[in-house]
Amino acid sequence: MIEKVNVEEKFGRFEEHWKPKIIGELNDSYVKAVKVQGEFVWHDHPSEDELFYVVKGRLVIRLRDAEVALGPGEFVIIPHGIEHLPVAQEEAHILLLESKSTVNTGTLSNARTVTHPERL
Amino acid sequence: MIEKVNVEEKFGRFEEHWKPKIIGELNDSYVKAVKVQGEFVWHDHPSEDELFYVVKGRLVIRLRDAEVALGPGEFVIIPHGIEHLPVAQEEAHILLLESKSTVNTGTLSNARTVTHPERL
Repeated sequence: MIEKVNVEEKFGRFEEHWKPKIIGELNDSYVKAVKVQGEFVWHDHPSEDELFYVVKGRLVIRLRDAEVALGPGEFVIIPHGIEHLPVAQEEAHILLLESKSTVNTGTLSNARTVTHPERL
Repeated sequence: MIEKVNVEEKFGRFEEHWKPKIIGELNDSYVKAVKVQGEFVWHDHPSEDELFYVVKGRLVIRLRDAEVALGPGEFVIIPHGIEHLPVAQEEAHILLLESKSTVNTGTLSNARTVTHPERL
């Protein structure tokens, strides 16, 4: 059964921050929905690129030598191996597109690490 | 240089229908922007899944035994090997997420085939 996904409906199903949920799967990738607020942790993904698309709110991705500020309808692709720190002053709703193997904290393992994201 | 992509700005750069443009590249995938209107052609991609996300307008994906009607903020993933026919009564703006190897008309080669999409 092929069913459509309404992104807003998915974001309505959870409240917690920094816990990505799988809302789509294709080829070797997952589409994930995540609510964020505040500062995450500096990390990188040595062999996986990662896409951040802002659905609602604003997201800043700090890089070691720059930063990218995103609003609704904007995305950025962080290439593998590039350290980054996502920051949102107020709550933001983000779609992630990443390899199935990607872990949210990259090479770190800490309280924020989600190794087996919930499926919504 | 890591630069953000504003999706609306990309759609403002072209007018033609059914000619996907590459607006992002990560891992083995492209993100493409395409304007559609009318009926495309029945086709399938034997080994590649394909995601359609509606930014503006409405898109119907006809399947052999069903159809999926999408509005803004909705997406569907068509699994590999499933025949589908995209249809839009009025112009719609669609983001595609697909393997780099995916050709818009699948196993068909015709006037609508785009083998080397333009990059915007």
